[in-house]
Amino acid sequence: MHQSQLLLNTLREAPGDAEAVSHQLLLRTGLIRQLAAGIYTYLPLGRRVLRKAEQIVREEMDRAGAQELLMPALQPAELWQESGRYEVYGPELIRLSDRHGREFALGPTHEEVITTLVKQEISSYRRLPVTLYQIQTKYRDERRPRFGLLRGREFQMKDAYSFDPDWEGLDRSYWSMYHAYHRIFERCGLNFRPVEADAGAIGGEGGTLEFMALADIGEDTIATCTCCGYAANLEKAESGTVLASAGEAGVGAAGGYSANESGKPQPEKFHTPGIKTIGQLTEAFGIRASDILKTVMFMADGEPVAVVIRGDQEINELKVKNYLGANEFEIADPEAVQALTGVPVGFVGPYGLNLPVLFDHTAAEMEQGIAGANEPDYHYRYLVPGRDLELTRVGDFRTVQEGDPCPRCAEGVLKFHRGIEIGHVFKLGTKYSEKLGATYLDASGRAQPMIMGCYGIGVSRILSAAIEQNHDEHGIIWPLALAPYQVHVIPVSAKDETQMALALDLYEKLQAERVEVLLDDRNERAGVKFKDADLIGLPLRIVIGKDAAQGRIEWAERRDPAAKMLLTAEEAVERVLEAVAGK
Amino acid sequence: MHQSQLLLNTLREAPGDAEAVSHQLLLRTGLIRQLAAGIYTYLPLGRRVLRKAEQIVREEMDRAGAQELLMPALQPAELWQESGRYEVYGPELIRLSDRHGREFALGPTHEEVITTLVKQEISSYRRLPVTLYQIQTKYRDERRPRFGLLRGREFQMKDAYSFDPDWEGLDRSYWSMYHAYHRIFERCGLNFRPVEADAGAIGGEGGTLEFMALADIGEDTIATCTCCGYAANLEKAESGTVLASAGEAGVGAAGGYSANESGKPQPEKFHTPGIKTIGQLTEAFGIRASDILKTVMFMADGEPVAVVIRGDQEINELKVKNYLGANEFEIADPEAVQALTGVPVGFVGPYGLNLPVLFDHTAAEMEQGIAGANEPDYHYRYLVPGRDLELTRVGDFRTVQEGDPCPRCAEGVLKFHRGIEIGHVFKLGTKYSEKLGATYLDASGRAQPMIMGCYGIGVSRILSAAIEQNHDEHGIIWPLALAPYQVHVIPVSAKDETQMALALDLYEKLQAERVEVLLDDRNERAGVKFKDADLIGLPLRIVIGKDAAQGRIEWAERRDPAAKMLLTAEEAVERVLEAVAGK
Repeated sequence: MHQSQLLLNTLREAPGDAEAVSHQLLLRTGLIRQLAAGIYTYLPLGRRVLRKAEQIVREEMDRAGAQELLMPALQPAELWQESGRYEVYGPELIRLSDRHGREFALGPTHEEVITTLVKQEISSYRRLPVTLYQIQTKYRDERRPRFGLLRGREFQMKDAYSFDPDWEGLDRSYWSMYHAYHRIFERCGLNFRPVEADAGAIGGEGGTLEFMALADIGEDTIATCTCCGYAANLEKAESGTVLASAGEAGVGAAGGYSANESGKPQPEKFHTPGIKTIGQLTEAFGIRASDILKTVMFMADGEPVAVVIRGDQEINELKVKNYLGANEFEIADPEAVQALTGVPVGFVGPYGLNLPVLFDHTAAEMEQGIAGANEPDYHYRYLVPGRDLELTRVGDFRTVQEGDPCPRCAEGVLKFHRGIEIGHVFKLGTKYSEKLGATYLDASGRAQPMIMGCYGIGVSRILSAAIEQNHDEHGIIWPLALAPYQVHVIPVSAKDETQMALALDLYEKLQAERVEVLLDDRNERAGVKFKDADLIGLPLRIVIGKDAAQGRIEWAERRDPAAKMLLTAEEAVERVLEAVAGK
Repeated sequence: MHQSQLLLNTLREAPGDAEAVSHQLLLRTGLIRQLAAGIYTYLPLGRRVLRKAEQIVREEMDRAGAQELLMPALQPAELWQESGRYEVYGPELIRLSDRHGREFALGPTHEEVITTLVKQEISSYRRLPVTLYQIQTKYRDERRPRFGLLRGREFQMKDAYSFDPDWEGLDRSYWSMYHAYHRIFERCGLNFRPVEADAGAIGGEGGTLEFMALADIGEDTIATCTCCGYAANLEKAESGTVLASAGEAGVGAAGGYSANESGKPQPEKFHTPGIKTIGQLTEAFGIRASDILKTVMFMADGEPVAVVIRGDQEINELKVKNYLGANEFEIADPEAVQALTGVPVGFVGPYGLNLPVLFDHTAAEMEQGIAGANEPDYHYRYLVPGRDLELTRVGDFRTVQEGDPCPRCAEGVLKFHRGIEIGHVFKLGTKYSEKLGATYLDASGRAQPMIMGCYGIGVSRILSAAIEQNHDEHGIIWPLALAPYQVHVIPVSAKDETQMALALDLYEKLQAERVEVLLDDRNERAGVKFKDADLIGLPLRIVIGKDAAQGRIEWAERRDPAAKMLLTAEEAVERVLEAVAGK
């Protein structure tokens, strides 16, 4: 491609609302342009990168035996009503009506469509398993679209769905996709980690893994072990069973009272006028947050439940929700707390509370603690879990913290990273096949629900993740496999006939070898050309300057601009072919 | 691909509502399945054909120097309001609101988006010309979706847009696309004709051409000359200037009166009680339709206009609309006719009519004629165009008929065909660049509107057109370039180890040569396999039967099943490679 003809406008500055580096660079290089919030046009360079990513995904899906199809974006609302998701999905689901008033959704995902299709097409175990995928435009009306291609409203996804006759089959299909994902992200040159994620109602070990590209801009926090291979999403990360105490057990001393050494004192109410928060309590009485049995009220499918945790820890709502198997789960609002307990938030405690109470391990393991008295302006002290508080429902309800011991190995501690979710493998089980009636006849002629898995890759997100991980202060540094063109041929002066002749010669030779070349034939100053070249970030660069008369060029790689070399044109072609072959 | 693993269900019968052969075969072969009216899923075989068509389109667009991008389907309503099309487009435009109540359209086409983009990106003549294209999903809420992929509501299109600094440039861009289209449809193996079509307000010779695949199911009628290369859409086809008279001039004799031989009689009113139609008039008075000056009232942008044509001819409304340069044009309803003329439809005539009157050539050339008297139950005879009727506005307002003389050459006559519109090249001019402000600075620094062209290809329609043109009573006969797989390898019995071993050997050898092979490894009766193979229609076939022990196979081509040959496996591989290379 001759750069003078390419629709390509580089910008010195990105618009002010572009926070993420990848968003800034996508705009500055003119790879994308915004049409509306979270809705982008891919310009020619951007389209090329997107196609490279698509092609890598397609090749690895095919290699894994998945079959490509293409489903519509317009999906009848009836399908979503049948699966029960039409209401649940909320305002992220874009809805519309056709000219006859029939309702449709613009697909954010295709479980309903694919399950209905496979139900129609496959009726016997002999036709299973099958894994189907598509690379397609998806729609999600994000409340807050941001970070360019990372959280858009119209975006490119690869979604795959597996159908197996049994759970062992699902396991095989699932891990086959897992390995394909590994190859895809490796080929894309990404630094990524598969991490355990929340599987909701399905659960089970490894029932869902998220592929995370490590990047500071990532919206997800992941916890990895410094020793073993454990890695999990923060919301999923398990709490190590042996959590170091936040100090010696010593409510007594710290609380300013003397404990009965032979036994423990009985619960004792004390006056705490207007003291509603842990901060106020620790300040007023000189105690530590870890001396307090923090109690929080939630509503789970409309029913109240209290969760108790050590005061210096945070409750992981998702863990509680999964423990209860609740569909809807949220913190109870102050009015509800008042109505249920008769006291304001801040004076609620587990002692004498006539509601279900869950204890996090950190609370259950406390020797004694302080909690609200369920009476305005009063708290209890000397509450002993197991003695005064019934420990029938104890679990891991805690959000892990950096430095916590690893839940898997003895040696490691957890370290936090930020990650961009670029892929997701998920064991769906029979959720959709049962709701939508996708059954098959087994060898004995009995109808059985198909066992499903679903597997997503954010194809457009790959672009953002790759840029987040591959850039410097001058611009993008494309991995070879994703680069819009592989080689940038830059004659320093387009007016210099010797330079242009050599440049064109190289351009044609490389193209004849099917190398993708961008020739900067623009009549611009050398400084402008180099600045643009750094910004666009093609991995290999051939600069043709004053040595052109001797048939020599300057070779450089975008990743290591210092390591320039003077080569003959023939040597340069050799080098390019070597680099491209080794990709 | 092993057929036993392919998601492929053939059907004996297509659903009853599938009228077109291509629709029936697409469903019977399981290439597509309907999700909702006009909305289809492409199953793996269908997806492969679609990708082949996409790839041919992409390669030829790239070769023509067009640059690929990808625009969103979600388009802000503001853009459509700016271009003035938001209201005009009517119910075919799918509209929706986002969570903030902002209106969007689901793009049926992208003139607004691309013009706005190019306006932002290009400001100087030095950056022009540029042609941009995308292959993308389009949405059109058809009133009556039908014929499978021919008239769908969600479909695949290639749309391209050229931007030039002047009209000569547009000409070059336009014809470059024209030639690319030729190559595309030739590579797809289609029998097609580029025909002149209506260019609306732009007009001009060759200002728009439609590429028509000839097929009986086609919704469009095209007229081609039996002698010269003239071909036009029926609505556009020009009327030959010398149209044979429908008989001798002879209103007099036929009308039962004796004409003044030395001159023509003066207009004479006569009583025609209750006689409102041409049929009634010819029957009651023994005259011919061609003796009548048929008069029809229309509303053009709200203003009435009468059009007069010879009674045996049909008015082409589009020609009238274009002649008047009207935006809205429709036949006047009976109430409006009554209000405007004081008489019911059927008694309106051009004589003494106080409204603008257009005459088609066939009416203007009549020696004399009969027409409504603008008085209930009366008509005039002896009306002489030019004497009694002012011929200031005469034009070609007639729909051509089969057998009409060619408007271009002296010898030919027009022949009618049915066609499927598979492509369209169109000189847009400045329509969008002016409305959306897409200007550039010319060499002297003056702002000028960009001159645009737009170019569409119905990528999914190519599948239907190819099937309409390539099938027999047993199924599809895929052109090699579009076939989902190139070769069908069929062991007659999957249980016969010798056959399967040879089949697998051939399968692997061909795959190693990058040939696309479908291996029918199903444990089905031979009859079932052959029936399916005929239906799916892969162009090359290798049947492995009882001669497998001698290393021999039966070679056949789907197009010519009679010409079977017994070959060695090596010869078969040779033949396949030759066929594939020659594609």
